[in-house]
Formats: sequence, C-alpha cells, structure tokens
Amino acid sequence: MRIDLNCDMGESFGKYEIGRDEEVIQGITSANIACGFHAGDPVVMEKTLTLAKTWGVKVGAHPGYPDLEGFGRRAMGLTELEIKTSVQYQIGALWAMAMAKGLRLQHVKPHGALYNLACQDRSVARAIAEAVAEVDDQLILVGLPKSELLHEGRLKGLKVAREIFADRGYREDGSLVPRGLEGDLITEHKIVAERMLDVVSKGEITAVTGKKIPLDGDTICIHGDSPNALEFVRTLRKELEDHGVTITPMGDFVKEEAK
Amino acid sequence: MRIDLNCDMGESFGKYEIGRDEEVIQGITSANIACGFHAGDPVVMEKTLTLAKTWGVKVGAHPGYPDLEGFGRRAMGLTELEIKTSVQYQIGALWAMAMAKGLRLQHVKPHGALYNLACQDRSVARAIAEAVAEVDDQLILVGLPKSELLHEGRLKGLKVAREIFADRGYREDGSLVPRGLEGDLITEHKIVAERMLDVVSKGEITAVTGKKIPLDGDTICIHGDSPNALEFVRTLRKELEDHGVTITPMGDFVKEEAK
Amino acid sequence: MRIDLNCDMGESFGKYEIGRDEEVIQGITSANIACGFHAGDPVVMEKTLTLAKTWGVKVGAHPGYPDLEGFGRRAMGLTELEIKTSVQYQIGALWAMAMAKGLRLQHVKPHGALYNLACQDRSVARAIAEAVAEVDDQLILVGLPKSELLHEGRLKGLKVAREIFADRGYREDGSLVPRGLEGDLITEHKIVAERMLDVVSKGEITAVTGKKIPLDGDTICIHGDSPNALEFVRTLRKELEDHGVTITPMGDFVKEEAK
Amino acid sequence: MRIDLNCDMGESFGKYEIGRDEEVIQGITSANIACGFHAGDPVVMEKTLTLAKTWGVKVGAHPGYPDLEGFGRRAMGLTELEIKTSVQYQIGALWAMAMAKGLRLQHVKPHGALYNLACQDRSVARAIAEAVAEVDDQLILVGLPKSELLHEGRLKGLKVAREIFADRGYREDGSLVPRGLEGDLITEHKIVAERMLDVVSKGEITAVTGKKIPLDGDTICIHGDSPNALEFVRTLRKELEDHGVTITPMGDFVKEEAK
Repeated sequence: MRIDLNCDMGESFGKYEIGRDEEVIQGITSANIACGFHAGDPVVMEKTLTLAKTWGVKVGAHPGYPDLEGFGRRAMGLTELEIKTSVQYQIGALWAMAMAKGLRLQHVKPHGALYNLACQDRSVARAIAEAVAEVDDQLILVGLPKSELLHEGRLKGLKVAREIFADRGYREDGSLVPRGLEGDLITEHKIVAERMLDVVSKGEITAVTGKKIPLDGDTICIHGDSPNALEFVRTLRKELEDHGVTITPMGDFVKEEAK
Repeated sequence: MRIDLNCDMGESFGKYEIGRDEEVIQGITSANIACGFHAGDPVVMEKTLTLAKTWGVKVGAHPGYPDLEGFGRRAMGLTELEIKTSVQYQIGALWAMAMAKGLRLQHVKPHGALYNLACQDRSVARAIAEAVAEVDDQLILVGLPKSELLHEGRLKGLKVAREIFADRGYREDGSLVPRGLEGDLITEHKIVAERMLDVVSKGEITAVTGKKIPLDGDTICIHGDSPNALEFVRTLRKELEDHGVTITPMGDFVKEEAK
Repeated sequence: MRIDLNCDMGESFGKYEIGRDEEVIQGITSANIACGFHAGDPVVMEKTLTLAKTWGVKVGAHPGYPDLEGFGRRAMGLTELEIKTSVQYQIGALWAMAMAKGLRLQHVKPHGALYNLACQDRSVARAIAEAVAEVDDQLILVGLPKSELLHEGRLKGLKVAREIFADRGYREDGSLVPRGLEGDLITEHKIVAERMLDVVSKGEITAVTGKKIPLDGDTICIHGDSPNALEFVRTLRKELEDHGVTITPMGDFVKEEAK
Repeated sequence: MRIDLNCDMGESFGKYEIGRDEEVIQGITSANIACGFHAGDPVVMEKTLTLAKTWGVKVGAHPGYPDLEGFGRRAMGLTELEIKTSVQYQIGALWAMAMAKGLRLQHVKPHGALYNLACQDRSVARAIAEAVAEVDDQLILVGLPKSELLHEGRLKGLKVAREIFADRGYREDGSLVPRGLEGDLITEHKIVAERMLDVVSKGEITAVTGKKIPLDGDTICIHGDSPNALEFVRTLRKELEDHGVTITPMGDFVKEEAK
C-alpha cells in the first residue's frame, strides 16, 4: 500500500505571501509549484524549489490560466493552442529553475479552473496532455480519477496519477460535492485521515449519502493554507503509516501502462 | 572568415504584430526570441520557433524586463536575484517550447535596457551569466565586445559571442554613438555592408570621427522591423559572401576559451 | 433623420500600434476609447483624447476584460462585483484624462466578449448599467437593440443608444450572423452604405435570407483597422447625407425615456 | 494645533491580502488608497472606499509605478508623459469609484519609488503636480516637507500637505535615515508618540544624532501592516489629544497659499 501526498506551493507573489510552505513541505512528498501565471513569480519559484530540495520533496509544475487577479480560478476562453503553448511555457520556466538546482520535474498538475475544465473537456485535456508529452514524456500527469485529463494523458503515453482530495466530500458517482453544498468539506482531521485510509487500503470512500463507493488514488491533495495544515498532515501520515501505508513520491510507483 | 547574423524575433503579442519575421528569417542564421516578459507570448513563441525550424535558423532566448508596456526598454530596479531568476524563467519557457519541436537553444541575448545594463554593470552581468550557466553551460552568451556581460560569462565558463550592430555608428572608444546624436544610425545599405565587411575581414570599423578603430565580432545584429529589412539582409549577405565570408550560426565557430 | 457614427479607438499599447485612428477620426462622430484593460495605455489614451478634441469628436469609455493577451475577446468568469467595479475603474481612468483636456465623456460601450455577454446575460448587463449609473447617470449606454444591456440601462434611468454594425450580416431575428458563417461580413462599400441608409431612413435591413426585417439604430459601428477605413467612412457619410441624414453625435439626439 | 493621520490602504490584490485596513481605519483621518498599478484591484478599491465611508475617513489616491511584482518599490525609467498620464489614470479610476459611493477625493500621495523620486527630481515632481492640477486643482498633494514635489505642487496652485513619518529616524538635514542604517526605525510606541508631539507642538524633532532640528508637518504617516498597528495609532492619538492637538483630516486645515 503506497500513496503520495501533494500540496500546491509557491503561490506567493512579490510582497504578497500565501500559504505555509515552510511548514507543510515537511509532511508531503510532492510539491505542485505555481509557475507565474495564476500565482508565483521567479523569486518565489526559486525559494520553493530550494525548500523542496532541502526537504527531499519531489517537484512538479502547477500551470494555470494567465490571471493573477483571479488566482487562476476564473474560467477563460483560451483556444487549444493557447492552452497547449502556455502550459509548455510554464513547465519550461520551472524546469530551467529546477535544473539550476540539480532537480528534475516529476509531474504536472493543472491549477484551478484549468484543472476543472481539463478533467471534463476532452479537447482541453488533449491540449494539456500533448503539451506535457512533447516537452518530456517521463513527466507524470495528475488529475481526477476517470477524468478526460488522465484519459488523454494515457493516450499520449504518459504516466498518470489519480488525485484524491483529502478534505472534500464525494458524491455517489465519484465526483466531488460542489463547494457551497452540504458535505462539501470535511474538517475533522481524524475523520479525514480515516477516509484516506479507506481509499488507500480498500479502494473505497464513504460518499456524502453514507454509501461506500469505489475510489482509487495515487496521490492525496493537502491544502497548505490553513493555520494547522502541518498538524493535519502529520495526523494523516500517522494514521496511514500506522496501518502499513508507505508515504512516497508518486514517481516511485506510478508506472507507464501498456497502451 | 565567419560571421553569424542575428535578429530579434517573436516580438508580437496577442493581436499586436511587430516585425517582419517571416521575411527576415530567410536571411539570418540566429534568431533571438522574445520570452513573454517585454514582448512575445506563448503562441507567438511557438510560431517563431516553427519559422526558425522551417528555415534552419538557430534559436536563442531573448530575455528582458517584465515590462510589456515599455517593451523592456525602460530601466527597472531589479535585485540581482530577481534578474537571475527571471532570466532562468524566460530561458526555460523557450527551452521547453523548443524541445517540443525538437530544437535546442543555441544562445542567450538579453534585451533592451537589461542588455545595456548588463554590458556595463558587473553585478547584473554576473546575475545573468550565473543564470545561464546554471541552466545549461553550453549556451552561448551574447553581448557587446569587451562588456562586463561577456567578461562575467567567460568567468562562468560560458562560450560568448561578441555582437556588432550593423546600422549603428561607433565612437573611437568602441562604444555606440547614443541614439539621437549625429552619426547614431547609418541608413545606406551599401555602406553598412561595407562597414560590416571591414569588421569581419580586417577587425576594424570607421568611427564617427572618421578614424579606423579595432572591432571584432562574432555576430551582427540586424533590425527586423523596417519595411526593407530582408532586402538589406540580402545586400549584406552578398557583400560578405562575395568577399569570402561564410555566414553561419555562432554555434558553429564560437569556442569555449581556456580559463 | 439622424445617426451617429462610432469607432473603437486607442487600441494601441506601448510600442504596439493598431488601427488608423488619425485617419478614421476625421469621419466619425463618437470615439470609443480603450481604457487599458484589453487594449490601450495611459499615453495612448491621452493621444486619442487629443485626437478627438482636435477633430471635435465625442468620446466614450470602451471598457473590457482585463486580458491584453486576448484583446478582451476571450470570455472570462468574472463575478458581477468584479465586472461592476472594473467598469467603474476604466470609466474613471478615461474620465480624469478627458477632464484634463476639458472634455466630458459622452457614452460607455463595453468591448468584445464583455459586450457580447452583456447583451445576452441580464446579471452582467445589470452590473454594467449600475456601474455607469453610479458614476454618472448622464452617460449614454451603447449596446445591441433589444439587448439585455439596453434593457438594464433603461431600468437604471440611463439614456441608451442602439448600435448597428455597418459591415455585418443580420439574421431574420435581428441577431448578427456569427463570424465564420456565410453572410457574416459585407465588404462592398456601396452596398454597406445602402444598407445603412435603409436602417436610418426606413428602420429596416435586408437579412441574410433576403427578407427585409425591422432594425432601428442610433449609432453605426465602423471598423477602423482596415487600410481603407477612412475611404469607407466617407462613402457611408456621403450616401447618408445625400439622402438627408444628419450625421451627429449620439448625445445630440438620444433622450432619456420616461420611466 | 492640528494634525492629520494618514495610512496606505487597499494594498491587497485578488486573493492576496495585505494590511490590517479594517482595524487601522478606525484610528486615522486620511486613507491613501492604492489604485491598481503597484497594488489594489477594483474590488479591493471598492471595499476600501466602503470602509472609509463607514468610518468617516477621507480618501485620497495613492498612485504608483505599474509594477505589482515589485509593489511599486522598484525604480522604473518612465518618461514624464508616462508618469503624468499614468497618475491621471489612477486618480481617475479611484475618483469614479469614490463618486459611486458619494465620496470625493481629498488628496493624492504618490507611492514608493515614485514618491521618493518625485520628492527629489523636479521633472518628475512637475509631471505629477501637472497631472493632479489638470484633473482637479482642489486635490491636496502630499509629499515630504521641502521636497521638489511640494514645490512643484505650489507652483501649479495646488494645496500641499507636508508628510512626517511616525516611526522613521531623521538626519540633521531633515532627511530620513535610509533603511538599513542605524536609527532608521523607532519601534517604541511611546517614544514615537512623544516625537510626533514635538513635531506638532514645537515644530521640531530629535535627529538621529540627538540634536533637535526644525520639522513641520501636516500629516503623519502610519504603517498599517504591523500586528499592533491599531494599538499604536491609539497610543499616538491619545498622546497628541492629551496635549491639546486636534486630529482632523488634512482637508480641514491645509490652505491654498498665496502664490
């Protein structure tokens, strides 16, 4: 039983600080680093890479829409070419800065509104999968299980990682309970940890209706901006490790599938 | 006798078009491609790389200040860390897009106000040289002959290319006649071509005072935005080739120096 | 019989130039000036205002999405508050620069994707109408005839101007033939001029099907970026004036309606 | 004895939050509101204006360089026309949003690197003074006592307010001790309050050398981003009011000088 713990990082910008990267990095195995479009800037990227290197955490690109004001959470009508090229641009920017520190990128996970669209829209998914495959076909593409994004990633020969959201509620069809609806967020650390253990050990989770549904994942997304984020990560790690789960970067176990 | 011809390219942005890239690319050997900070965007970068690939022209990164409104020509008080990381960011962005097309970057030439400062200010020169060397020490650094930029580049073990400006006047000390002063620009194609032949064949140029001064170069900068830019490049090429000069990318002949 | 001729202007940015403002301004009565979000910058705005003052053309704000790269033509998921405040921001920016020249704003016309959405979506229309009414309820709001935008404008007590597109084809329901479909554009100057005369003198236009449909307008939108834009405007003016139509700014004849 | 207390506000941007505006607004009399260039966005501006209206605090524009990444603290080589028009742009943006709430702008205070340059460089000072005077000659221009900025403001017929920095050390010539040098910051609330009382009641301050020097001011700048900013403001108010000083907006007492 193996699982990766990922967290969005490097989302500060200039004088603006967001996130508790210096704490949370201590508990995760993969860092998704913002690339300067929806968040982050070159100096922040450099600091975040240094942090990841210090703690031995694997790094990946976290490309988003070119919309700092909306933090990449506002839908934008980009063409497929605009999406593909801007994802390559962002991957490359982080790539070079990682190389400068002797690091290699492990994965790519789109951010915010781009992630949501890529999981549902085949043409957007394809644009992103192509972008990644053309730059480096050893990069792992991260997305929702059963999403268009992972489907297109596999078609391009990419390794993919299925992402589970630690503190989000799930509906019976395996989709997330939309934010704002009852059961969207689970705040009790202990319960979240138990739910994630169910996913890792049994391949199932309790949906918002109370019914157990199948759910498999390779990486669990942690939110790094709450004041007790590190405490939560430690609770989660302990629960998983106490039950024999190995916490390790996705790159250690996600394999290329036979096409 | 060998020389490279370089031109700044990919300076369009969104709906805004600048330059006659599709024409001028036919006459040069090295393209300096804007990386989205002072000009260019991911789609423009992709188109410019495709153009360079089609015509067999070598590509390099043309990083600038984060100032689209000022086209990278306004001085900005960035720290050395800001300069170093933003240069790496820009190199990487182009790098990934080039890789996606099976191209490798040949060189890096800073743009506008950043180029000017890097040629004169040792700490800025060092920040850029370090940025390049850390990302890929096979990249050639382009700058003014005898500049701080090339000095620092050599100290970092980089190959360097000395740049001559085709249509600019020179003072007796080898510096450019500042724009706006008499003799700053030479517009007659034939005269420019003859001057460049002097540089390549004799290592000298006629200064604005009329005196011959020594000037060596590896690459000649062509301006690509005038209506007759391609015609000029062809005149220049013919003049040089008729006198036995080989026009070839700087990567073919610029060598690492013994430290 | 009276009509206004409007044109989008001031869409250059920094070193990037778009449009033939200096020519087209000579033939129109109202200029919609970009406000720095999708196009334009403070220096361009200043120049455009000076141009309008020189030629006695009325000025209005042309607010758009904060997306220079997409020229405001890409849909963006802004909240109503984001739309309302960013429209006020843009109106104000132009307002102050107009005041500095002794000019007052006559109208507001949203740009691109924001215009399209505002014409169809009531909540977006309301956000814009509120934005305008709160800043200055004497400003005229410009939009498609029968659009949500003009409906909401009237509800807020604003004067509204119904806009006709000179060179676009219309469907039988009065909507524009979408770009890319047959009949979307009418390129023959003489025909365009005759069609506009029909609108002004008879309140009707020939739809793409050949059927005459009712269409009333207060202002005709001219595109200012074609090489023969001024020639076209003169053809149009002559055709209209020869048939007794007065070409005059919308502010001269658009009246507040009884609520 | 009268004095104004001002604070920079509305410096958040999108999801990024800076400052304790909701607390500090309770203790000041004038708010300098960022206008979207170096900080702030339309939604943040709207919220800050609402806050100022709620607490009866006067509002002014706080224009800066177009450099969000550098928070307006990096020098930029703008032309005088670029400075003048961008200052008018920013004033106007806030102006319209203030009008929408029934508020009028009281003053203009440049931000960061632009403020520093405007205080020393006559041509920059003139560009800003002209920008303000052309938009509304009733606006008060805020700057360092004896600065070029206030000198040019008076020449344009503007009312000016001399600004004192509460927690900064002064040199014998009346200039600020540069940041990073000994005595640059005074952190003890009680001492700061006593120093400000000296300025207001005696027109003098103790320089870093220990010598008393003359210093007159109309408004004291408070920093609003420290955790105990409100507590400090209250200490300062009490000290001043206990000694008979009236804390009131600069607009109440700054008068136009005879030219």
